[in-house]
Amino acid sequence: MEELLTAISRFISERDWEQFHSPKNLAMALSVEASEIVEHFQWLTEGQSRTLPPEKLAEIREEIGDVMIYLTELADKLGIEPVEAAKAKVAINEQKYPAELVKGKASKYTEYS
Amino acid sequence: MEELLTAISRFISERDWEQFHSPKNLAMALSVEASEIVEHFQWLTEGQSRTLPPEKLAEIREEIGDVMIYLTELADKLGIEPVEAAKAKVAINEQKYPAELVKGKASKYTEYS
Amino acid sequence: MEELLTAISRFISERDWEQFHSPKNLAMALSVEASEIVEHFQWLTEGQSRTLPPEKLAEIREEIGDVMIYLTELADKLGIEPVEAAKAKVAINEQKYPAELVKGKASKYTEYS
Amino acid sequence: MEELLTAISRFISERDWEQFHSPKNLAMALSVEASEIVEHFQWLTEGQSRTLPPEKLAEIREEIGDVMIYLTELADKLGIEPVEAAKAKVAINEQKYPAELVKGKASKYTEYS
Repeated sequence: MEELLTAISRFISERDWEQFHSPKNLAMALSVEASEIVEHFQWLTEGQSRTLPPEKLAEIREEIGDVMIYLTELADKLGIEPVEAAKAKVAINEQKYPAELVKGKASKYTEYS
Repeated sequence: MEELLTAISRFISERDWEQFHSPKNLAMALSVEASEIVEHFQWLTEGQSRTLPPEKLAEIREEIGDVMIYLTELADKLGIEPVEAAKAKVAINEQKYPAELVKGKASKYTEYS
Repeated sequence: MEELLTAISRFISERDWEQFHSPKNLAMALSVEASEIVEHFQWLTEGQSRTLPPEKLAEIREEIGDVMIYLTELADKLGIEPVEAAKAKVAINEQKYPAELVKGKASKYTEYS
Repeated sequence: MEELLTAISRFISERDWEQFHSPKNLAMALSVEASEIVEHFQWLTEGQSRTLPPEKLAEIREEIGDVMIYLTELADKLGIEPVEAAKAKVAINEQKYPAELVKGKASKYTEYS
């Protein structure tokens, strides 16, 4: 993670792009990249999405890289450590969705959120 | 990262939610969470987005956690390591956007993509 | 459409919100509302998405209203008429995806885009 | 609007694409197209977003067309009329955000939602 952040920072500063990378703009870029992942899946069945051909996987790997880059950069700008934030959120979700109440139910999020 | 993946896997399996977590559905959830970050920024100026009050930051930290959770889970389902994918993408971007051509230009992505 | 635009304009101006409604911010709000539609569908099967219960439909109707509101407002700010833009795009797509080449193929968009 | 819906229906049926156009998949496509609008704005200032050059406007017009197409198709599949849904939502918002309370405040949505 630290290596990644260093690589991103150098990439941005060599191009003099800090001026464009406000948290607002990075949030936009993050959501655009997340949608580029969605685009790969929008016409596939769930079954097809579980068995992607290698060339499709290679493309999605690049999009996942893009999401990870913007997430890392945005989090860093806000003084947030994304892996720690994710662990903390799993702990919150464990309280929010008690296993005995939501087990096997797709309705979970709506009914318990 | 490994600890995070273990925590996510246990959380999902205790709730019997693997059945809902196809790559297609996880891609949707990832983009929904990314938009929840955008929602915090949509009416702020770029300047305001750089100086968020602590209670706003705490909310955004949870959303960043959610994005990281779904990104980790989706990547794992596809056999992709997100930090490695991000490093590889930075290297690709270094070729795609030569510093001397795009320095200080916001038009970078459109004109060179 | 004209009545809708009048209602939106009055709503915005009564609240003195024009200052926040730059095209950039409206584009963000539009994508956030589109994601709120996605959120309703993310854990459903395609089959379930075709047979929604009335209370779910009522919620989605509100989200569709939100997307339509922001789309109308953004388009108006840019001097674009959304229904005309959509008709023009259908005509473009007819050239881009010749029926005889893409008939019944999900791979259409990727392979022919 | 009716002409548009007729054109879309013919376009889809000539390509035998109804099978892919479940409400779930259409919601995904809608959000992907909304993000393609966001992509045009992500590195612009709000000021720049108000004064776009003609070639940029032409590109955004196509994306607005795409959003309108998928919104129309999704709404039709669900038996919803998007312009009516938008008018109904403006009326709801008038109650939700009383002009005297939210006038000129960007914090509106968060504090009153």
